[in-house]
Amino acid sequence: MARIVQKYGGTSVADIDRIRSVAGRIKKVVDEGHEVIVVVSARSGVTNELIDRALSLNPTPNHREMDMLLAVGEQETIALVAMALHALGVPAVSRTGAQAGIVTDLAHTRARITGITCDSIEECLSEGQVVIVAGFQGVSPQGQITTLGRGGSDLSAIALASSLKADLCQIFTDVNGVYTADPRIVPNARKLDEISYDEMLELASLGSKVLQARSVEFAKKYGVLFEVRSSFNDSPGTLVKEEVASMEDVVVRGVALDKNQCKITVSDLPDKPGTAADIFKALSDEEILVDMIIQNVGRGGVANLTFTVSREDAERSRAAAQSVLEKIGEGNVDVAEGIAKLSVVGVGMRSHSGVAATLFQTLADNHINIGMISTSEIKISVVIDLERADEALRLVHEAYNL
Amino acid sequence: MARIVQKYGGTSVADIDRIRSVAGRIKKVVDEGHEVIVVVSARSGVTNELIDRALSLNPTPNHREMDMLLAVGEQETIALVAMALHALGVPAVSRTGAQAGIVTDLAHTRARITGITCDSIEECLSEGQVVIVAGFQGVSPQGQITTLGRGGSDLSAIALASSLKADLCQIFTDVNGVYTADPRIVPNARKLDEISYDEMLELASLGSKVLQARSVEFAKKYGVLFEVRSSFNDSPGTLVKEEVASMEDVVVRGVALDKNQCKITVSDLPDKPGTAADIFKALSDEEILVDMIIQNVGRGGVANLTFTVSREDAERSRAAAQSVLEKIGEGNVDVAEGIAKLSVVGVGMRSHSGVAATLFQTLADNHINIGMISTSEIKISVVIDLERADEALRLVHEAYNL
Repeated sequence: MARIVQKYGGTSVADIDRIRSVAGRIKKVVDEGHEVIVVVSARSGVTNELIDRALSLNPTPNHREMDMLLAVGEQETIALVAMALHALGVPAVSRTGAQAGIVTDLAHTRARITGITCDSIEECLSEGQVVIVAGFQGVSPQGQITTLGRGGSDLSAIALASSLKADLCQIFTDVNGVYTADPRIVPNARKLDEISYDEMLELASLGSKVLQARSVEFAKKYGVLFEVRSSFNDSPGTLVKEEVASMEDVVVRGVALDKNQCKITVSDLPDKPGTAADIFKALSDEEILVDMIIQNVGRGGVANLTFTVSREDAERSRAAAQSVLEKIGEGNVDVAEGIAKLSVVGVGMRSHSGVAATLFQTLADNHINIGMISTSEIKISVVIDLERADEALRLVHEAYNL
Repeated sequence: MARIVQKYGGTSVADIDRIRSVAGRIKKVVDEGHEVIVVVSARSGVTNELIDRALSLNPTPNHREMDMLLAVGEQETIALVAMALHALGVPAVSRTGAQAGIVTDLAHTRARITGITCDSIEECLSEGQVVIVAGFQGVSPQGQITTLGRGGSDLSAIALASSLKADLCQIFTDVNGVYTADPRIVPNARKLDEISYDEMLELASLGSKVLQARSVEFAKKYGVLFEVRSSFNDSPGTLVKEEVASMEDVVVRGVALDKNQCKITVSDLPDKPGTAADIFKALSDEEILVDMIIQNVGRGGVANLTFTVSREDAERSRAAAQSVLEKIGEGNVDVAEGIAKLSVVGVGMRSHSGVAATLFQTLADNHINIGMISTSEIKISVVIDLERADEALRLVHEAYNL
């Protein structure tokens, strides 16, 4: 007997038929004699409908009330899944985030889990019940309903798996697992059987939208083994786990493309200490996440600073940089869209040379220009033209024999 | 400064525009310097949608899960109303039934309120906030979400008004108040300015669908003054209160019609003790509410028993009676639809004679046959043909000069 946490996302419980199919899937695991804890999201579309209603009443809704509102999405799903299990003769009971003992801080709409009290769930499990927990939500010590922000249901599942000392956490979604590249762009991309937390983290933060980096970080920190797999078929997915020695034999695990970036260049800056700091302070005050950064000093002591941000943040970033330049009285800001970031990821890179050379050579052979380069221990990223991004991904995927 | 509880039903908060209009109405009361506690229902249609989803997954959904599911309807509304108030600059905070301290027993889907802990609401009121409470729901001492059954939101409002020692409880609905008769049938029916709890109780249980008897009983028991009024205009409604001396001057307060009844006749029964008891025991085991009852003994020691039940319960009632007859080995069951119950209500009846005579004379003059008669201290009911029911209501309304 194993203890298994399963998480089903919004598309997996979108309608009555899919809920019924999820219940069937849970029953199979129960019939094999396992203890099952299920974490579910709101039915897909429900959260957006609720947000639309809120915004049409109030363009800047209070965060506490927003949490009160959005928590209903998951509460609906847990009850429906429990009823579907009952219809199959499987004993099951639902739990809101609060009832499941998921305690968070008071940062409404982006709360952090501070602890989980598992007594209620343990009791239900010992009675032979499947426990269906509302993902994405928790409760503050003051009794307020909170939500965890984007990707919150994955985090609920991984945190519960950790607290309940589950043997496995399965994240069911609408893709079959983690691929060597996006299969919609690279038709011969291959599904990975396993991947390390660090590799998954680089992929998660690189536009491979399988899982939010936050959930992977949590899993890494607490050593939660989890599997990403599809709720629409029975194929095994990708196991995400601690790096093992054999993993290093694989030099490059996958390649990823982020088309949602834009490049901001601040030019003709005085080359003196503090200028870059002022600009990044202004961006951070606006809660803008900066990705790649390059600074170089040209002739005559004039510096150029280039960085990338999400396309949604382009105008706010320009304004933030502009406001600093106005105080300095020098410099220009330029926003370039039409770019993409291509990344090569693999823990084996650390001990293998030549990975970067292969990337640069492949792009050069095909006359694809490199705008920026950034590297980490297990990743190399380059900025290229958006127009040739898909082609570049296919070429690089090929070059590494993935 | 007064303390006022306002309750808005599903049609009053059906969509964004109506929620905005409810917020405007609340703001007016706040601007007059009053403390306001608002109880809301789910947006109309939402509860039925949720029930439909549940039933398509499981024809006999578990009651605990049903409560978990249905509670989301009101939770959505409280958040939206709070946001709408914020948009008008009114400080407001929402509270689920549990957060509002509404404690119930564990009888899921038809829980009874066992107590209300008002600390949290009192604290919000003292901070100058409007408190928006989810009606229809509560929490058991074990932390389970419960719902109060039909008319539950009215009960939440009246119970809160009692616990919070409110000066007034306003029940906003889609009618202007309580009328001397249904205005859709009797065009010259008059809205009543006031009515006693007992009269309202008789009307509530007689198809005048303004309020469930349960809420009126609670208000009577705890002496909660409440007003039934429309959320679609500013006209004063009907005040429901303890009977006062002057009320007795009015002999007949109103006339009501219940078209949702059917008559069940059990004939040729042996006239011996216990037969009727067995039949009513069988009906009560099926949780069927029996309204009027007549028994008479014909020649040869053979008894006939006639009673009325809701039309929905017709077939289950026939089956229950039949099962008793099979044990006895005698008797026949006959179900007659096509009937209506017409009732005349007024506390003044107790001290005035001639009320019944006027009723019988009016019906006789117009050749409307009376099938059954039943009376209480403040009510006379007769069963008549459904076909002539509307006409009879108009004639009787006229006869009492209402």
